[in-house]
Amino acid sequence: MAAPSRLLIRGGRVVNDDFSQVADVLVEDGVVRALGRDLLPPGGAHAGLRVIDAGGKLVLPGGIDTHTHLQFPFMGTRSVDDFHQGTKVKEEMKTLTQEKGVNSFKMFMAYKDLYMLRDPELYAAFSRCKEIGAIAQVHAENGDLISEGAKKMLALGITGPEGHELCRPEAVEAEATLRAITIASAVNCPLYIVHVMSKSAARVVADARRDGKVVYGEPIAASLGTDGTHYWNKEWHHAAHHVMGPPLRPDPSTPDYLMNLLANDDLTTTGTDNCTFNTCQKALGKDDFTKIPNGVNGVEDRMSVIWEKGVHCGKMDENRFVAVTSTNAAKIFNLYPRKGRIAVGSDADIVIWDPTSTRTISAKTHHQAVNFNIFEGMVCHGVPLVTISRGKVVYEAGVFNVTAGDGKYIPRKPFAEYIYKRIKQRDQTCTPTPVEREPYKGEVITLKSRGTKEDSTAGTKK
Amino acid sequence: MAAPSRLLIRGGRVVNDDFSQVADVLVEDGVVRALGRDLLPPGGAHAGLRVIDAGGKLVLPGGIDTHTHLQFPFMGTRSVDDFHQGTKVKEEMKTLTQEKGVNSFKMFMAYKDLYMLRDPELYAAFSRCKEIGAIAQVHAENGDLISEGAKKMLALGITGPEGHELCRPEAVEAEATLRAITIASAVNCPLYIVHVMSKSAARVVADARRDGKVVYGEPIAASLGTDGTHYWNKEWHHAAHHVMGPPLRPDPSTPDYLMNLLANDDLTTTGTDNCTFNTCQKALGKDDFTKIPNGVNGVEDRMSVIWEKGVHCGKMDENRFVAVTSTNAAKIFNLYPRKGRIAVGSDADIVIWDPTSTRTISAKTHHQAVNFNIFEGMVCHGVPLVTISRGKVVYEAGVFNVTAGDGKYIPRKPFAEYIYKRIKQRDQTCTPTPVEREPYKGEVITLKSRGTKEDSTAGTKK
Amino acid sequence: MAAPSRLLIRGGRVVNDDFSQVADVLVEDGVVRALGRDLLPPGGAHAGLRVIDAGGKLVLPGGIDTHTHLQFPFMGTRSVDDFHQGTKVKEEMKTLTQEKGVNSFKMFMAYKDLYMLRDPELYAAFSRCKEIGAIAQVHAENGDLISEGAKKMLALGITGPEGHELCRPEAVEAEATLRAITIASAVNCPLYIVHVMSKSAARVVADARRDGKVVYGEPIAASLGTDGTHYWNKEWHHAAHHVMGPPLRPDPSTPDYLMNLLANDDLTTTGTDNCTFNTCQKALGKDDFTKIPNGVNGVEDRMSVIWEKGVHCGKMDENRFVAVTSTNAAKIFNLYPRKGRIAVGSDADIVIWDPTSTRTISAKTHHQAVNFNIFEGMVCHGVPLVTISRGKVVYEAGVFNVTAGDGKYIPRKPFAEYIYKRIKQRDQTCTPTPVEREPYKGEVITLKSRGTKEDSTAGTKK
Amino acid sequence: MAAPSRLLIRGGRVVNDDFSQVADVLVEDGVVRALGRDLLPPGGAHAGLRVIDAGGKLVLPGGIDTHTHLQFPFMGTRSVDDFHQGTKVKEEMKTLTQEKGVNSFKMFMAYKDLYMLRDPELYAAFSRCKEIGAIAQVHAENGDLISEGAKKMLALGITGPEGHELCRPEAVEAEATLRAITIASAVNCPLYIVHVMSKSAARVVADARRDGKVVYGEPIAASLGTDGTHYWNKEWHHAAHHVMGPPLRPDPSTPDYLMNLLANDDLTTTGTDNCTFNTCQKALGKDDFTKIPNGVNGVEDRMSVIWEKGVHCGKMDENRFVAVTSTNAAKIFNLYPRKGRIAVGSDADIVIWDPTSTRTISAKTHHQAVNFNIFEGMVCHGVPLVTISRGKVVYEAGVFNVTAGDGKYIPRKPFAEYIYKRIKQRDQTCTPTPVEREPYKGEVITLKSRGTKEDSTAGTKK
Repeated sequence: MAAPSRLLIRGGRVVNDDFSQVADVLVEDGVVRALGRDLLPPGGAHAGLRVIDAGGKLVLPGGIDTHTHLQFPFMGTRSVDDFHQGTKVKEEMKTLTQEKGVNSFKMFMAYKDLYMLRDPELYAAFSRCKEIGAIAQVHAENGDLISEGAKKMLALGITGPEGHELCRPEAVEAEATLRAITIASAVNCPLYIVHVMSKSAARVVADARRDGKVVYGEPIAASLGTDGTHYWNKEWHHAAHHVMGPPLRPDPSTPDYLMNLLANDDLTTTGTDNCTFNTCQKALGKDDFTKIPNGVNGVEDRMSVIWEKGVHCGKMDENRFVAVTSTNAAKIFNLYPRKGRIAVGSDADIVIWDPTSTRTISAKTHHQAVNFNIFEGMVCHGVPLVTISRGKVVYEAGVFNVTAGDGKYIPRKPFAEYIYKRIKQRDQTCTPTPVEREPYKGEVITLKSRGTKEDSTAGTKK
Repeated sequence: MAAPSRLLIRGGRVVNDDFSQVADVLVEDGVVRALGRDLLPPGGAHAGLRVIDAGGKLVLPGGIDTHTHLQFPFMGTRSVDDFHQGTKVKEEMKTLTQEKGVNSFKMFMAYKDLYMLRDPELYAAFSRCKEIGAIAQVHAENGDLISEGAKKMLALGITGPEGHELCRPEAVEAEATLRAITIASAVNCPLYIVHVMSKSAARVVADARRDGKVVYGEPIAASLGTDGTHYWNKEWHHAAHHVMGPPLRPDPSTPDYLMNLLANDDLTTTGTDNCTFNTCQKALGKDDFTKIPNGVNGVEDRMSVIWEKGVHCGKMDENRFVAVTSTNAAKIFNLYPRKGRIAVGSDADIVIWDPTSTRTISAKTHHQAVNFNIFEGMVCHGVPLVTISRGKVVYEAGVFNVTAGDGKYIPRKPFAEYIYKRIKQRDQTCTPTPVEREPYKGEVITLKSRGTKEDSTAGTKK
Repeated sequence: MAAPSRLLIRGGRVVNDDFSQVADVLVEDGVVRALGRDLLPPGGAHAGLRVIDAGGKLVLPGGIDTHTHLQFPFMGTRSVDDFHQGTKVKEEMKTLTQEKGVNSFKMFMAYKDLYMLRDPELYAAFSRCKEIGAIAQVHAENGDLISEGAKKMLALGITGPEGHELCRPEAVEAEATLRAITIASAVNCPLYIVHVMSKSAARVVADARRDGKVVYGEPIAASLGTDGTHYWNKEWHHAAHHVMGPPLRPDPSTPDYLMNLLANDDLTTTGTDNCTFNTCQKALGKDDFTKIPNGVNGVEDRMSVIWEKGVHCGKMDENRFVAVTSTNAAKIFNLYPRKGRIAVGSDADIVIWDPTSTRTISAKTHHQAVNFNIFEGMVCHGVPLVTISRGKVVYEAGVFNVTAGDGKYIPRKPFAEYIYKRIKQRDQTCTPTPVEREPYKGEVITLKSRGTKEDSTAGTKK
Repeated sequence: MAAPSRLLIRGGRVVNDDFSQVADVLVEDGVVRALGRDLLPPGGAHAGLRVIDAGGKLVLPGGIDTHTHLQFPFMGTRSVDDFHQGTKVKEEMKTLTQEKGVNSFKMFMAYKDLYMLRDPELYAAFSRCKEIGAIAQVHAENGDLISEGAKKMLALGITGPEGHELCRPEAVEAEATLRAITIASAVNCPLYIVHVMSKSAARVVADARRDGKVVYGEPIAASLGTDGTHYWNKEWHHAAHHVMGPPLRPDPSTPDYLMNLLANDDLTTTGTDNCTFNTCQKALGKDDFTKIPNGVNGVEDRMSVIWEKGVHCGKMDENRFVAVTSTNAAKIFNLYPRKGRIAVGSDADIVIWDPTSTRTISAKTHHQAVNFNIFEGMVCHGVPLVTISRGKVVYEAGVFNVTAGDGKYIPRKPFAEYIYKRIKQRDQTCTPTPVEREPYKGEVITLKSRGTKEDSTAGTKK
């Protein structure tokens, strides 16, 4: 039987990022058609209309809730692992943006000898992003220090998962974060820091924003919901399942700190960096932590974790919850208000949320294939009841109803106004101009250069 | 006539870094022999004893006061411009330290393609410094960004001295400072940041010290006494004479801020980075600021500027003045208490200082050859009356009495206790140890590597 | 002739705080009825419809632009100058909130012996505000220190306007700001700091927000557009016209700093604290700065100053401009989305703004009665063309069309969701509970109390 | 048998705050007479000379090690609990300073209705301290908030020791610390914050010092060695024994943080605030935490705890250890270099310290009468072997040899140079002067005052 072409979500509290209101939502052809009290759909309640009672429930813009949607913030993300190959790539970036609707590119400052870009390459990549109106994303860790640190740990006989954190402490993340921001700022290119994992790095982002930099930080479910003390767990597999890069931090006050900054818009969006491996896959690194596949779960529990640690604990309200799980990402990736808001004309990506129910997260009950859950045992207030993707109910009563290929790629335009308006204005009004002076007319004495190359620093003393 | 072999400095207020006292100072053979009230030199006041009346004056440990002494903190400093040539160099560092008494090495993060070291080279150099017990010094500026910034300024038609500052703003200095500290900390090597020029960089140093890092910051006479607004001066030669790297900062609150941190031991020592060029030499860069020889005066006026802005303004007392102009450097470079203190057994490097006199700094009256003075017109309370170097009066009543070759090279031992005691202790007690675990005995599944190289990140997802 | 009952604003770029879109706006009976492309008003373009062409212009939610609107953020504000009179007052606060629609109360920490509340009174006032769902506003300056400082300045012979700043430096404002936040946080009451004037105070607010405090800071046109160096102006009347409390700050980087924080949502709204006096009124304090009436202009130029220093300089975009001039205040004072947004159903308070025109602010041309303008000579990009208040054009082509009594008082409900959702949640989930313990059953020895009163600190050593 | 009148401490490593050296120390008549290698005491090694072999040991300036010495930093401290009684007191302060050698006064911002001073009283007390050359000490906690917090906790049924911390969280300490510093700075009076217990308060002190304030912070053995998680201990007596004011903090990273700041001279001295009560005394508050006598142990273990957490962990070296346990206090309280340094002419207050031995702190073995030790079980590297007070061995081989009355009161002079040199200089050079202006000659209009009192704010708008 064909799914009904129309949905009426009745009596819920519709939560957008700016305010909440009790209203009905009428959906047709995957789009929100009407929003208001006591809607009477034209044509009446015939067979083609499904009515969902949302009384006492919240009606939220869809976050990341189907596999397709899950990848949303990274959809189109392309690591420039071969960026240094030259101009061809740069041309490819332009093509991807203009023809394929890709408007973000991810660069790595970690993974030396593999993906890692050096500063001049970052400078070039950021410059290119700006030219084509994309946003630059970085994985911010100092790859050189990680590489040296890993050698040192192994030399000390530390082969277990705790070595993963010890060789890449907070300073390694914070340093790279500041460096990326400094380079992006020199280029006047907007920057997006993926998976902010530490207090230090978050503070760097927050301070830069105070200072006027166009930079966005993304903590993830893992860094908001658990911490790195697990790397010292006596069970190897337990510790190994928390391995990701950058690592979770041993400082147990980290999640609270990150959530405070997220609540306060010092951090902007939330991701999962979801990448799950079973214990027997993790076991690749049983004798050497550098061989443990990096990745944790998160996608399924992201909204619950953020609701619990953010909304239930009183750090943010339901509107800010919508902002950090949906609206802000839609703005940054130039999909707003089609995505990220429940309004007439928006895509009907909707979650019906029960803020009064609770559930306990567990690997025993989760829908993911992985045999471990880093949030095991967390009691979460706030449970998703129904998930709607472009007008279609894809999750309901604990059951997924998704067919392969249901996902839809949404090309995104470059030069998202949310991030580029300030950038462009600064190009116009902050460009310096020369001081007017009389030319110097006196004698000029040539110094003997101490350097051997013909370059701009020829006359420089050491 | 031979200089008297003994000196008696009578009735002055002897100022060390910990306290001051009115006392006579008896000097024999270049060394302080006695210190106390109403000293009666053995043998009495015969022809070989010169008595200097210091009543109402201050008697300070010599700072940097003759050309030889001037270079003191950098004496033996060797830029590792060819550090990347390999192991040979590393061996040379060892030789310099063990045989020649060099215990500090200066590295550049600026001057791309000339002296600039990349991060792995810094890591190696810092590691080597630590092995041999030296202190690593860095010129902290991001050379890549300077290089790109200079191109951009010239492309905008900005060829004057203001371009020098515009292409290397504060963030360029602060970023490199944090990077150097992060690398040195990973190595557990003490670090010395030469010529701290900006509030941002100074804050990075101060924060790192609060966080327990073994790092020292050195502002200079120029950054403590003037600012970078001069780069916008309408007279080209005036602006050009202020060009140095890192540049003076346009923020006029910089000198006060640096002095506060210096008073509070967030910054530790003071230098001059003295390197003077006449106008016709500066004029090499008349059409292109990147060609202006970098360097300003400072050595002659350093103590007056610090006294005026530090002591006279009430930011530090006379004891802290001695600490930042003499004692701390002596400790860091392992010459204390032979240098940096007036005590029995110390070298008789002494300045007799009149805190009540004033003088006006001017290129017309200074002793340096250069035809410009960046402190022109500054009225300074506090004037040096007599300067004594290893027991010999080298300056008195406005006249220098120095012969070429008077300077004496002082070999310094490595592993200065002042900086290395903590370093060594940390190596012993802060080294991590493995978590004891049962080995994992389950199945292991091999993942297909996404990378092409055999390396430690083989299993890493992007 | 009666004003047309309907307005159609054609082709403008409608700017809300979340995004901008080119759209027509149809207004009927003082309310926005439709928003969209190429609107065809039902009934067509008959005599009762006025069409305003806004092509190439911005259509903004009304800020504070007519006298009625000007008072908006303070409308209903009532200083609790007699708060200490006791319970009656407290009852009055309840009445004002429940019956009169007043949902904010302003308290003074300055003006000793006049309005100043001491800490226990603030605690009580904040507690009351929270009970009744109001927001507490404070003028944050340490009244004791101002009082002592003023005496000291007069004793030093400093009678001019510079004494006004010297007796109440930044620390006086920052201290009180932290104290108010600490007290409000102890009560779990939302707090609004009026007229944030200094970098120090702004940093206190920003840090508190990062730390999760429910606090809002309001810089004003004066602190965003000029600085306190004017107090040292050689012309007495010039200096006196800048006198307000807290004072403008001599640090010339203050406006930029505050604007950065405002752009970044560390500060939230903008006011003017407009209160103007002519020179002959200011002259009351010609021999004693403490007698100079406190107050500067601002209301007429607020939007232009913020546009110029915020939007034109690239610190914020047009959407953030709407947030800080209109939307955020509407949310805090519980009028959103009726005010603060151009949306179907909202009040038609609208400004048509020309971002490409410029004007020069001057006392010669301004509409206020006062004979001085603190922004004299400032060239502003961005000019208001038409102002509409609840559907009526009240300003157009340089002419005001306002009748006394046009203003309308809007009662506001307490417990604004924007500020109270988190407050209520915290009351529920952050309240501590006792540790369960076995009762202590051992001996108890009574200590001789050193104090003389029966109180909780009886056993306390000093 | 009479104690030998002379002591020769042979072959130890003499540690002062500036450097360490292997040297013999000769003591006569309670004073250090000679310091050097291979000392041969005049008169030789007869019966009157006791030789103590200190080979391989450290010879440190005495910290606080006998009961007499223990009270040293507070010796002469007098709480101004009746300061508000008026001028008589003020006169008494003068008398105490000039005739009795008291140069510090302690004020309370906590203990409302008992000792607590309000801001104007603090202002007056600080002013008086400055006049007479004393240093003002404050117990910095907001007494109003504690009082309200305690009521709230009891109303919630929280009667156990955890209530003690919950009613006076970090912000209560940090707020009062900033307030005290702001007031002292307005007076230009040096300030000493006793028992800094939290990261927040320590940061306030450190930031103020960076900003040039003359302020000193004193963490104590308890805040450096343990934390406030103990208040949640299931055993009532265990929790109660940790009760002191301000309380220990639940954040377990507090001790490390404070030690880092102490190592870096952001904090300056260390105390104990030792005040011990047995369990049956603590039990006074078994049903109401506000009745628990405030106080913990510390005096006996202070040096061991700081050595362990400071020196052994590599945060500070032995010289900084001497500074924070002895030298800095001697400077602040104007006893340096008679106290706080091992030098010719200094009092022979000496500790012989074995840095290689370890001991375990326990109530079972400590010498104090109290039946609980908050450092129970802490293994400390570094053990005192011999303690010498003014030339007399008062502790040796685990045995105390002190007679009642052995203590000696040392009158201290006011205006300690260490703290007052900057204060005086600022009075001279930082006092503002009036701007020279033509007097205003125009019309003056009198405003109707809104206030009823004749005061300086007559013309002020609200």
